[in-house]
Amino acid sequence: MANHNEAAGELLAKVRSTNPVVHSITNYVVMNSTANVLLAMGASPIMAHAREELDDIVNIASTVVINIGTLSTQWIDSMSYASRIARIGGKPVVLDPVGSGATRLRTETACRLIEESLPTVIRGNASEILSLSPAGGATRGVDSIHTTDQASQAAQTLAGCLGTCIAITGERDFITDGTRSLSVANGHPLLRSVTGTGCAATVIIGAFLAVEKDPVIASAAALAFFGRAGEQAAIDTPGPGTFWQKVLDALYTITPEDLATRARITES
Amino acid sequence: MANHNEAAGELLAKVRSTNPVVHSITNYVVMNSTANVLLAMGASPIMAHAREELDDIVNIASTVVINIGTLSTQWIDSMSYASRIARIGGKPVVLDPVGSGATRLRTETACRLIEESLPTVIRGNASEILSLSPAGGATRGVDSIHTTDQASQAAQTLAGCLGTCIAITGERDFITDGTRSLSVANGHPLLRSVTGTGCAATVIIGAFLAVEKDPVIASAAALAFFGRAGEQAAIDTPGPGTFWQKVLDALYTITPEDLATRARITES
Amino acid sequence: MANHNEAAGELLAKVRSTNPVVHSITNYVVMNSTANVLLAMGASPIMAHAREELDDIVNIASTVVINIGTLSTQWIDSMSYASRIARIGGKPVVLDPVGSGATRLRTETACRLIEESLPTVIRGNASEILSLSPAGGATRGVDSIHTTDQASQAAQTLAGCLGTCIAITGERDFITDGTRSLSVANGHPLLRSVTGTGCAATVIIGAFLAVEKDPVIASAAALAFFGRAGEQAAIDTPGPGTFWQKVLDALYTITPEDLATRARITES
Repeated sequence: MANHNEAAGELLAKVRSTNPVVHSITNYVVMNSTANVLLAMGASPIMAHAREELDDIVNIASTVVINIGTLSTQWIDSMSYASRIARIGGKPVVLDPVGSGATRLRTETACRLIEESLPTVIRGNASEILSLSPAGGATRGVDSIHTTDQASQAAQTLAGCLGTCIAITGERDFITDGTRSLSVANGHPLLRSVTGTGCAATVIIGAFLAVEKDPVIASAAALAFFGRAGEQAAIDTPGPGTFWQKVLDALYTITPEDLATRARITES
Repeated sequence: MANHNEAAGELLAKVRSTNPVVHSITNYVVMNSTANVLLAMGASPIMAHAREELDDIVNIASTVVINIGTLSTQWIDSMSYASRIARIGGKPVVLDPVGSGATRLRTETACRLIEESLPTVIRGNASEILSLSPAGGATRGVDSIHTTDQASQAAQTLAGCLGTCIAITGERDFITDGTRSLSVANGHPLLRSVTGTGCAATVIIGAFLAVEKDPVIASAAALAFFGRAGEQAAIDTPGPGTFWQKVLDALYTITPEDLATRARITES
Repeated sequence: MANHNEAAGELLAKVRSTNPVVHSITNYVVMNSTANVLLAMGASPIMAHAREELDDIVNIASTVVINIGTLSTQWIDSMSYASRIARIGGKPVVLDPVGSGATRLRTETACRLIEESLPTVIRGNASEILSLSPAGGATRGVDSIHTTDQASQAAQTLAGCLGTCIAITGERDFITDGTRSLSVANGHPLLRSVTGTGCAATVIIGAFLAVEKDPVIASAAALAFFGRAGEQAAIDTPGPGTFWQKVLDALYTITPEDLATRARITES
């Protein structure tokens, strides 16, 4: 439907005009790159993990993003606390279960965070999402060994049971709340050769949730925007180093009209 | 005055010829980018936060930079200890009070560090500097919601009371020790769309303090140099990804003569 | 000998076809850049430091890389544990003793890790390697103040005594197990103006060790590959920012045939 693509453009304009503060408790690997993603697109990143300042930080933030890519006991406690106070305060929370399925600590932490305070959106690759479903699933590391198609049914069931929105990213992106599902066809294979592109997708969803309450619509718009940036960045690009800088450029230069025209969101 | 601009060029030449070691205890988000800034300009970065090695590290370092962007109890203790031994050893310390005013933990930590061992220079955006003055001031996150003009009077009073040098960066940079004040007009708006550019300004001040004892002169020269790199990087640049790489290139290629010619430091 | 250069090309092809998982416990400064290096070249990075998940992580990994660039007590324990279980499990371990010689904590930690579970390869700059030899040696920070030639004899003796492989990187790279030694002449001076290029060399050695058991051959091939990427990236490049992105591009685009032709590995 054209509606979803037009909505994506409008939401991008809203992010740019409201400049939402997105708080992340995330892994060390992607802190710099995801902060740059948020700034480039017109949002305002803040990173903080000390228990002592989480009340103040969540109070300032429009959205909270939790990413379990490099865990430790203290950080898990902070993730748990920030999620809970954000949900109590009515603020959207996005969970990125990096490496869930690869280690017991990661799978258990993801499940604990989901049980304690249901995230608004869970964004993972196919293997990570499969690892959260009752059927389970193993993975080899932080990179997916499953396709979106292999995980979409499980995502639909899980989203329905939990009452949340799940976004699988991959060659095709799939977003579902159990009853409604959208697919996003934007993107480029070079995104797989840069670290933290999944994490980048997650924080962009966070920024869009600040301006759109429907998590399925917000997530699809965010993923179309990021995928479109990848497409544009790949033109005449020799490799992943130059590519990532051009992704940041594209997040800055893509207009709402560009996005409305080029987004490829479909019902599925 | 032309003098300050010529001095900036000379100080850059001294940094390049002496290759000073700048020790940072800084936030996770900018560790990579500020290390690259120091290397590109001709200084030598070292990051270390373990209490057990701070005596050895500070002993090697020419300058110590403390940046409170991602705090935790242990790191605050290390920041406090490193500042104290640096000052006792007669070495310059630069404090970057990232997000002071946004959370009580950050404001209190910045104030504690200032009280325990007065930094040689405090570099922040307008909101951060306002948060340190008795009048106080709130901010929305880590990005400033005030202009340099709104904070310059408070900075002048605070610097005079404390007996230190305060540098406000923004559209216009303002450096003061309470009696003398300089302004720097170099810079480019794209610097606001990249994370850690304030933190980058801070470490560059750190490198210049290794070769110039007067903190007002050193800070103005450093900010003119960084601002000039931003101006040069912005030429024909599509967005913040490409821009930042060109900033690093410019920090490497700008000559002392370029800087002496293009710096725009004025008394104010 | 042409053999070593041809072998380098073949090993690169094997890395690309097997996509080995390289686990790093490394410093905060280079986590993002070394993850990008591994992805660009066709390996799969994973970072994890929590004691609770190291068994699972090392089990998944083909190689473990330990880098002591930003230490703390808890991280040292994790490094120690991961090294030991990797060696028990028959997996290669690469140690990067960043800043050994600059502080007692770093020198002692490097020595402790070597004693507890001998690494397959120790990769450092000349000053770091000298600091590990009985004669000792001081260094000024994390950048070398010695040349490869000044450290090659000590490396040969140390490698022979320990029964391991030592790789010194610098203007010329030198790899030795005490009896056999290889030199690599690939590389470019701009690599010294980017942070974490030594750490990048270390993870590339880690990836090559996943496909080649002989650590001297694997290390020489890895360093020729990385050096070649530096040479290619330096062509028409204005400075270190642009240069590093082109290094990542080159790690992605250099073919096995290119490497076999351009590698400059010699016996020494």
